Amino acid sequence: MAGNTFGEIFKITSFGESHGPAIGVVIDGCLPNMPVDFELLKADLQRRKPGQSIYTTSRNESEEYEILSGVFEGKTLGTPIAIIVRNTNHKSEDYAHLADVYRPSHADYTYQTKYGIRDFRGGGRQSARETVARVIAGSFAKMILKALGVTIQASVSAVGELESKLKPDEIDFKAAEQSLIRCADPILEPQMLSIIEVAAADGDSLGGKIICVCKGVKVGWGEPVFDKLHADLGKAMLSINAVKGFEIGEGFNGAKSKGSLQNDAFHLVQTEVKTITNNSGGVQGGISNGELIYFNVAFKPVASVKNVQQTLNEKLENVSLQIKGRHDPCVVPRAVPIVEAMAALVLVDHYLRNLPNQIQLF
Amino acid sequence: MAGNTFGEIFKITSFGESHGPAIGVVIDGCLPNMPVDFELLKADLQRRKPGQSIYTTSRNESEEYEILSGVFEGKTLGTPIAIIVRNTNHKSEDYAHLADVYRPSHADYTYQTKYGIRDFRGGGRQSARETVARVIAGSFAKMILKALGVTIQASVSAVGELESKLKPDEIDFKAAEQSLIRCADPILEPQMLSIIEVAAADGDSLGGKIICVCKGVKVGWGEPVFDKLHADLGKAMLSINAVKGFEIGEGFNGAKSKGSLQNDAFHLVQTEVKTITNNSGGVQGGISNGELIYFNVAFKPVASVKNVQQTLNEKLENVSLQIKGRHDPCVVPRAVPIVEAMAALVLVDHYLRNLPNQIQLF
Amino acid sequence: MAGNTFGEIFKITSFGESHGPAIGVVIDGCLPNMPVDFELLKADLQRRKPGQSIYTTSRNESEEYEILSGVFEGKTLGTPIAIIVRNTNHKSEDYAHLADVYRPSHADYTYQTKYGIRDFRGGGRQSARETVARVIAGSFAKMILKALGVTIQASVSAVGELESKLKPDEIDFKAAEQSLIRCADPILEPQMLSIIEVAAADGDSLGGKIICVCKGVKVGWGEPVFDKLHADLGKAMLSINAVKGFEIGEGFNGAKSKGSLQNDAFHLVQTEVKTITNNSGGVQGGISNGELIYFNVAFKPVASVKNVQQTLNEKLENVSLQIKGRHDPCVVPRAVPIVEAMAALVLVDHYLRNLPNQIQLF
Amino acid sequence: MAGNTFGEIFKITSFGESHGPAIGVVIDGCLPNMPVDFELLKADLQRRKPGQSIYTTSRNESEEYEILSGVFEGKTLGTPIAIIVRNTNHKSEDYAHLADVYRPSHADYTYQTKYGIRDFRGGGRQSARETVARVIAGSFAKMILKALGVTIQASVSAVGELESKLKPDEIDFKAAEQSLIRCADPILEPQMLSIIEVAAADGDSLGGKIICVCKGVKVGWGEPVFDKLHADLGKAMLSINAVKGFEIGEGFNGAKSKGSLQNDAFHLVQTEVKTITNNSGGVQGGISNGELIYFNVAFKPVASVKNVQQTLNEKLENVSLQIKGRHDPCVVPRAVPIVEAMAALVLVDHYLRNLPNQIQLF
Repeated sequence: MAGNTFGEIFKITSFGESHGPAIGVVIDGCLPNMPVDFELLKADLQRRKPGQSIYTTSRNESEEYEILSGVFEGKTLGTPIAIIVRNTNHKSEDYAHLADVYRPSHADYTYQTKYGIRDFRGGGRQSARETVARVIAGSFAKMILKALGVTIQASVSAVGELESKLKPDEIDFKAAEQSLIRCADPILEPQMLSIIEVAAADGDSLGGKIICVCKGVKVGWGEPVFDKLHADLGKAMLSINAVKGFEIGEGFNGAKSKGSLQNDAFHLVQTEVKTITNNSGGVQGGISNGELIYFNVAFKPVASVKNVQQTLNEKLENVSLQIKGRHDPCVVPRAVPIVEAMAALVLVDHYLRNLPNQIQLF
Repeated sequence: MAGNTFGEIFKITSFGESHGPAIGVVIDGCLPNMPVDFELLKADLQRRKPGQSIYTTSRNESEEYEILSGVFEGKTLGTPIAIIVRNTNHKSEDYAHLADVYRPSHADYTYQTKYGIRDFRGGGRQSARETVARVIAGSFAKMILKALGVTIQASVSAVGELESKLKPDEIDFKAAEQSLIRCADPILEPQMLSIIEVAAADGDSLGGKIICVCKGVKVGWGEPVFDKLHADLGKAMLSINAVKGFEIGEGFNGAKSKGSLQNDAFHLVQTEVKTITNNSGGVQGGISNGELIYFNVAFKPVASVKNVQQTLNEKLENVSLQIKGRHDPCVVPRAVPIVEAMAALVLVDHYLRNLPNQIQLF
Repeated sequence: MAGNTFGEIFKITSFGESHGPAIGVVIDGCLPNMPVDFELLKADLQRRKPGQSIYTTSRNESEEYEILSGVFEGKTLGTPIAIIVRNTNHKSEDYAHLADVYRPSHADYTYQTKYGIRDFRGGGRQSARETVARVIAGSFAKMILKALGVTIQASVSAVGELESKLKPDEIDFKAAEQSLIRCADPILEPQMLSIIEVAAADGDSLGGKIICVCKGVKVGWGEPVFDKLHADLGKAMLSINAVKGFEIGEGFNGAKSKGSLQNDAFHLVQTEVKTITNNSGGVQGGISNGELIYFNVAFKPVASVKNVQQTLNEKLENVSLQIKGRHDPCVVPRAVPIVEAMAALVLVDHYLRNLPNQIQLF
Repeated sequence: MAGNTFGEIFKITSFGESHGPAIGVVIDGCLPNMPVDFELLKADLQRRKPGQSIYTTSRNESEEYEILSGVFEGKTLGTPIAIIVRNTNHKSEDYAHLADVYRPSHADYTYQTKYGIRDFRGGGRQSARETVARVIAGSFAKMILKALGVTIQASVSAVGELESKLKPDEIDFKAAEQSLIRCADPILEPQMLSIIEVAAADGDSLGGKIICVCKGVKVGWGEPVFDKLHADLGKAMLSINAVKGFEIGEGFNGAKSKGSLQNDAFHLVQTEVKTITNNSGGVQGGISNGELIYFNVAFKPVASVKNVQQTLNEKLENVSLQIKGRHDPCVVPRAVPIVEAMAALVLVDHYLRNLPNQIQLF
């Protein structure tokens, strides 16, 4: 009920404060006998890591994980997999000036009011540091999806007002990974770099968007009423820090259009049912239809900016606040593996949820 | 797991096919001793009802409900409340031509592939008729919220390319209710009526947007990690038929902006903590902050259009399809109470989920 | 949370007060495309029905059910199956004298205190009438189990102090069904009939025990830690009205014994792993081991007895109570199909929960 | 679904194999701002610890815990509390001879068949070592219950055939704690010690029973249908390794009796509603009635006995097995704090689940 568990069958529980002893995750419901792909796990953690370039925070976080349970001789046991990452970068004094201040558009005030207590150091549980748990769990989900022939790839589609027009099937995700800001758009990427540099120089921040494309999902994943595939994807994305919007397929643009233009007609490609267009984004009636699943995620600009802000402290006094420390001028590049991880969790879960429909008992 | 239940404490289970005997809902977890507000229930059902104007389908659906359990002498018992609405308008012959055809951008194909069977009559379970269950349950949720001083109001903010610029706190929801298409924008509403008329005449359909505003929510509702208040609102909205996008607060527009512009500074208004702006949409870190909660929902144009469409049948033969029957040229006016209902379910649930944090045991 | 839902994948939600309009159940998660075995359903309802002999209550309850959803042309759709049974025997005046009295060892007082309200007519939701929902749902579970080769059979093993010594594999369940009190013990059954007659004549009631035997369960059902197969069976049984005890295998007797005597040695029978003894009752470490699953359930004597009892009313005045109406002198004969139904629900659920372990992905 | 999570609001997730790096637990849903009672935690861990006397295993297990999250400056944050205990006693070579053998009445065979893999060292996840997670979590539950005035106390009521006749309200739990085998019966305790000594000398084991008594539970905890308070207690107990039976109140004995003798009449004690007898064990209709809650739990004799046993190995060959290592000749003394812990988890959860019924909104 406290909402630190995600998923129905492939179920993860996240724990840990940013400056507590460790961040961790328990994965309950992973398939047994699965060889753990340690390379994949390492790569995903590496991709999430801060300090990869001047375009992200230079904060130095450890990503060294320890597997506490559920893996034996390199394979999953079918028992819960607990993994932790120690927090090594305890500069609590950096945060002392924030102990009793409510930073604008952060969760200090809401946490304090909800719980009557909070760990102010580094944002505590509200810190983006929590997402390391998601990336680890998502990596295990990807291992299953890989065996099913499903790939999940995300990249940056917008930074501030610069918005790429690349279609989901046109994106070169390899190129995106080579970009310092994980954007595959050859024309816009340099401009994005520039505006991030300007924002960083100003101590300001920029929002942006990420597009995620899932290939190889068979027909039939997703439950048709409340747990529609895109409803669960939407929730997963909106649960990521700083995310404020989600759209599947043509989304908000499609809403401006007409049925005669938006409908995706079925046709046969060899013996396979396909749609000619894919405005639906691979989901119809909440269930995957075998096409590319794609969706966009909107991130607000990071709230930690360096200009002096007026705000209140816990005594409800007016105070001037200047946030210190190192923060991402634009969060979207580092959020790419987090988006992928959450998508992987949703897809694996719906794959497992659909198993009963695939038994041929009758 | 099959996804027909929504909510954690205030939990509803929806059932029923469009042309089966009945649509119904079981509400488990409603507070006991609550006087049932039959007027509210009737009004919400009336608002959802088809055939209210030429701008919606003229389909004649019964909305007469029967309470089967959980209410005794006008008050809730604390036991599950089961309510059904009989389906009286069984013109199955209208749908015979659809028995083995996969309508484009409908869920015929995905249902059939997932389950190996479907009730094709009127779309069966994929029909918007299912939402009557949501409206009934939402109405009970609103009764609790009313007692808490919370109101939830939605209205149409866009039809096709016509998009209202009214701010969340500028909308006159009473006026919206008097509009045939539930739009409060005095300038755009007549234009919207026109383009819907044109679409209807063409047998085409238009997408649109709905804005929803929740007033009176106290600080502290919502769980900070996976079950963020706006993540659950997003899922709730994306679970409504035809919804393809969701954004909280400034959403996709905010993603184009800078932190220095988007941050909502705290200040005191008398003795109350308020934010000067409300770009966050009333939620920070997944938890309500006491401001107006507002969000936008994007609906694709209804897939049932009258032009001849190329598609496949179950034998995977190419067929030409012309959809008969009565359909909404624009679904958003009738979806307004459904958006409200789903929002009410999320809010009540999070109110109840937050109760443990309000005990003063220590 | 309010506890009217049972199961994780094969999930049922029960609703209805004894003298409200209807009792019902929603089954969510039944396999699609399953031909409904209407004979089985009818037979199970018939077995539960009151008034079958002088040894059970002569109360006349309707068992005519109506399927509201989820079944199309005789087959399950994979969508929620809602079924109701109307309450036709509304003699509320029989209960008027109980409106404000707390019957001893009934739930009047606890309901009233918990909710501040209760439907006193016929016990409302605490009535055994609620079990009709369980029997209906259990019948659908049995249809799946039948296709898997699993049978579930229960019979009366004790009435009052008369306790059958028949071993689980010695019971002739066919004979039990032909007994008026569902006891297969040829020697004890007539004596049981006698003591029930005496109790009935005295207006008194007798407790008893039911043994349940499940054949054909493959190795591997049940989760090893909290959701052990016998833990879930135990909960299922203890959730039945009047049940006060549960034991799997040798249970309480085994607890008096030694490890050297209780251990079930493995051996090969042809190519199959079997145990020589089965003191474990078919479950080891919470997981089925392929042997007969058997367990005993203890029912307290029905609380509705005719002797005058001292108790309190809602005003907390001392009152003398004489319960009117027709009640079972011994509840166990009629509880047999309820025990089977709950067992079936648990087994089907664990069969479905085990599916992910049976995929050969790696 | 994989069943490593327990509870609905106060929710715990257990992880860890006996000889893996650590055993741990995540507690999600603990009240915020609660001062952690480190003394209580330490005491409970100490009570569960092996090697306390010759009557329990001499295995040397570390009980040093580390709190990884959820506690800040000695108080709970309202965020998930993760706690681990490292496994220091890795004598895997002790278990090498068990790597491919199916020990009788252990879970080796069922685990191996279910998952196709198992960690054979020390029983892996099936080890009683897992219960350290439960005791830690139960300790936090007790801290809340303490603030509510609820105490939970268990003691040994039977060893082998020696069964104490002490009534629930006659047990001196302080005396029990001073007994080497946690039995408060002054006459039977010495005899129990003797028979355990004999069993230990024989390399054999004895079963037994534990009685648990909960004082101070208010009226109204427990949900009336599937999640009856005693159904959840029963499940909790049956989920403990080696437990094979559960009974609430008079349980199996009550089933031999008559309604006229078993009913608990209500009367007023000063201004409080009490029952004259308490055969119900403090629960009526699944809801606590304010009386003592008491129940008995049956433990089979530990399966690890030293006599040579015939069994099978993974190749399905007949093998003779002699189990080495140190094992409890009688498990019940050490299981006492585990029974208490599980009871505490159930009670706290139902306390929290009942909160919505205590709001006076209407």
